[in-house]
Amino acid sequence: MKVFVVGIGLIGGSFAIDIKAAFNEAEIYGVDRSEENLNKALELGVIDQKATLPEIEKAAIVIIAIPVDATVSIINEVLDRVSDNCLVFDVGSTKKKLCEMVASHDKRRNYLAAHPIAGTEFSGPQAAIANLYRGKTNIVCEVEKTAFKLQEKGMEIFSRLGMRIRYMDPVSHDRHIAYVSHLSHISSFMLGKTVIEKEKNERDIFDMAGSGFASTVRLAKSSPDMWAPIFKHNKENVIETLQEYIANLTQFKELMEKDDFDEIYKEMKDTNHIKTILKGIS
Amino acid sequence: MKVFVVGIGLIGGSFAIDIKAAFNEAEIYGVDRSEENLNKALELGVIDQKATLPEIEKAAIVIIAIPVDATVSIINEVLDRVSDNCLVFDVGSTKKKLCEMVASHDKRRNYLAAHPIAGTEFSGPQAAIANLYRGKTNIVCEVEKTAFKLQEKGMEIFSRLGMRIRYMDPVSHDRHIAYVSHLSHISSFMLGKTVIEKEKNERDIFDMAGSGFASTVRLAKSSPDMWAPIFKHNKENVIETLQEYIANLTQFKELMEKDDFDEIYKEMKDTNHIKTILKGIS
Repeated sequence: MKVFVVGIGLIGGSFAIDIKAAFNEAEIYGVDRSEENLNKALELGVIDQKATLPEIEKAAIVIIAIPVDATVSIINEVLDRVSDNCLVFDVGSTKKKLCEMVASHDKRRNYLAAHPIAGTEFSGPQAAIANLYRGKTNIVCEVEKTAFKLQEKGMEIFSRLGMRIRYMDPVSHDRHIAYVSHLSHISSFMLGKTVIEKEKNERDIFDMAGSGFASTVRLAKSSPDMWAPIFKHNKENVIETLQEYIANLTQFKELMEKDDFDEIYKEMKDTNHIKTILKGIS
Repeated sequence: MKVFVVGIGLIGGSFAIDIKAAFNEAEIYGVDRSEENLNKALELGVIDQKATLPEIEKAAIVIIAIPVDATVSIINEVLDRVSDNCLVFDVGSTKKKLCEMVASHDKRRNYLAAHPIAGTEFSGPQAAIANLYRGKTNIVCEVEKTAFKLQEKGMEIFSRLGMRIRYMDPVSHDRHIAYVSHLSHISSFMLGKTVIEKEKNERDIFDMAGSGFASTVRLAKSSPDMWAPIFKHNKENVIETLQEYIANLTQFKELMEKDDFDEIYKEMKDTNHIKTILKGIS
């Protein structure tokens, strides 16, 4: 089973590692515009061979794990090149633009739109780890538009890697993921920015920061190469979440200005039930 | 060495556990307005005995680990009651109001203003853990106003518990801690609120949330009993941080509205160096 991984970073590399472990017959081919990444992936044993895009004609599986704008740019070329029995899936954090892009392609049925909710704040092949996907949710969009046999092939991979599947339409996916993922990244980046701006001349101040601050700004370490395209693709939804977030922060500030600490207490108490909601998210 | 811990929750309880382990001669007395907490602390072996406030006349050490407004209310009574050789320290997240409150007390020299930057999002005696303070920063304010022998006594405890000490005046402490701690809590609470409001009728949506969301809203599990008084005490500084945070979020939203994704990329790239800053914070 020839598996081509296009983009051999954290996400693609972690797929490569797990698929190799779960399927004896898998041979992993890495495609990446960075020769350095490819060499590192080979050296680390993340891939078996370096390859180029035209070679995907011999692939049984193609996994596209590059920024969402780059995926939109090459998805039709990939579908043009693959054989009739090849499954192509991507793993991007937005799904609507991509589903639109492939909608009328002759080989639409070779494509499966997936979004495994997994990752870390690190990037590159050296960040790839085993079992990244175990116990994680994988959102699959427009499953009915993928050929039945290729759906099965995809589910076999996702299931051996330990993922649980949720089906969703791409418009709902993009709207909800703006709340539970994209907004978190912006809140974290802007928190980091606010503190760095204020404290840039006072290095010692970060000695005062504890694990709470570290946890809240963790996502501000994320790669802009990945995230700028996501925000661009999901612009309307993300702007809406930002408006609501800013409105809530402004209201909190106004309660403080009015010395209404009873209401502030209540706001926090009400939000505490995030504890229950978060149960089960590692 | 009779050690009285006033407020036997996460913070006070964790001090009790570590002091007992580090000082053979320590006997831990728990004082708490909740009989249930006291019984639980006794049952868990966090304290050796239950006690009441008047008994602190026999204390060698008093640790006040209750919400900052409650500390301000009782600190002078505590100082009235303790013996001349007793060290009293608190562990609250704001220091200015407390230092003002004790400024003219006869026993000002018995008091040490401390703020160990340690904790978890859990609370109560069952949340108390060993080694919570190991490797953590402890900010000490107005050290020169504490009697020399009692400074030494305090440092002996902090040092055996593995804390590193930073000295700071209470006004600077409250200003900087607003950025590196208090703002993180509000950003997290309001993120939790925004997502819960939006998704309250769609429980399945939280299946989509990953570890990034969990990390960013972790602090929204924190106790309002502890945090509402902190925001009240540090009102001016916290409002200032909120203004700057809201301004940065608004600017980010405007960049998105203008489709200026190059600038958005740059903002994120610039903030990425939080990686370096966070090194060393666990």
